[in-house]
Amino acid sequence: MRIALLGGTGDIGEGLALRLARDTDHEILVGSRDPEKAREAVEEYEGTLAEHGVDADLKGFANEMAADRADVVVLSVPPYHVGDTVDAVADRVDEDTVLVTPAVGMQGDEDGMHYHPPGAGSVTELVAQRAPDGVPVVGAFHNLAAGKLADLEIEFDLDTLLVADDADAKKRVRDLTNEIEGLRPLDAGPLANAAEVESVTPLVINIARYNDDLEDVGAKWI
Amino acid sequence: MRIALLGGTGDIGEGLALRLARDTDHEILVGSRDPEKAREAVEEYEGTLAEHGVDADLKGFANEMAADRADVVVLSVPPYHVGDTVDAVADRVDEDTVLVTPAVGMQGDEDGMHYHPPGAGSVTELVAQRAPDGVPVVGAFHNLAAGKLADLEIEFDLDTLLVADDADAKKRVRDLTNEIEGLRPLDAGPLANAAEVESVTPLVINIARYNDDLEDVGAKWI
Repeated sequence: MRIALLGGTGDIGEGLALRLARDTDHEILVGSRDPEKAREAVEEYEGTLAEHGVDADLKGFANEMAADRADVVVLSVPPYHVGDTVDAVADRVDEDTVLVTPAVGMQGDEDGMHYHPPGAGSVTELVAQRAPDGVPVVGAFHNLAAGKLADLEIEFDLDTLLVADDADAKKRVRDLTNEIEGLRPLDAGPLANAAEVESVTPLVINIARYNDDLEDVGAKWI
Repeated sequence: MRIALLGGTGDIGEGLALRLARDTDHEILVGSRDPEKAREAVEEYEGTLAEHGVDADLKGFANEMAADRADVVVLSVPPYHVGDTVDAVADRVDEDTVLVTPAVGMQGDEDGMHYHPPGAGSVTELVAQRAPDGVPVVGAFHNLAAGKLADLEIEFDLDTLLVADDADAKKRVRDLTNEIEGLRPLDAGPLANAAEVESVTPLVINIARYNDDLEDVGAKWI
């Protein structure tokens, strides 16, 4: 399978690229608005993977090219770029492509981070609204601390919650998530339940801030 | 210390009464709008505790009487009763009493449960607005499954998140929580961060609904 990480030069993109390249046999396409930046990131990731004894072969492309070649397209961009990114790749994806969105709208103030969803109710539902007809959307990887994800020294035991209306697409992302070591996919229901999933992201940041013995906090649902 | 559980005949009240009576030496006052109902609940809880070899001595009162005698007052009532309950006990609490609120506003539809905060931003902040001047408010015990809490056969390993603006009151509830076996208190910051804590409650219900192997789901922040 080919997995494109649009905005794959960012924090969550880096972590997913490294974990997927290390733990799975899928082809990883790192996308960026600037293809040169994507290729630089690929070199850096390959270096990191080599340090961990992994002979990986990633590829860097402009977002559109990465999406065009992929079976699963992860929109690992900030929430305010998600809509534009979907539009940019709209004619490169079809019913056989799964769009995956991990983005969360947040605003910080002196007290902490607060959930700040778009008018669609959640970023996940915004992506579903903007996606071309028939292209399935799955919300996943929302509440993972980027630092923990990108540090291959850390063996974690975390959960990630999936929301989707399309059962086949959800299963594909569930299977993919199961291939990442230490990451358990759990079902949180249809896209309409995305807000409750997304709002955990500001919470884990607040927990890390207010508890000295915790950093890069993640959730385990037991 | 004396701990009043207002609405202590409900699900969360029952669980807290049983766990606190079993694990701590504090005096537990079960409150209800109907004192007779409170006394019936006390008899039932004492029976359950006796079955587990615990010789407990709880007391049942009308909510006002329970609050009047307590150092910590837990508002274990449904969210739509919280404001009225605070009003009902307003002249029975003072600066030495800590008000604790575990209530969460939710609405269900065919997809699942959804977070539905009051105009104050969260139930916790609503309680703080309605509480008499100078009476400290702590949000705690929001995301605990009542069934798991009330079943003393279950040894759990769960976290609960605390929000408060008053450091002394927060510490008092933190210490109390630490006395409950298997329950770890974590700091989620000031009252303004309560919405992110409360919105985990509909999420754990959704996770239990959509994953066959999970029920009475709770959170562990790692």
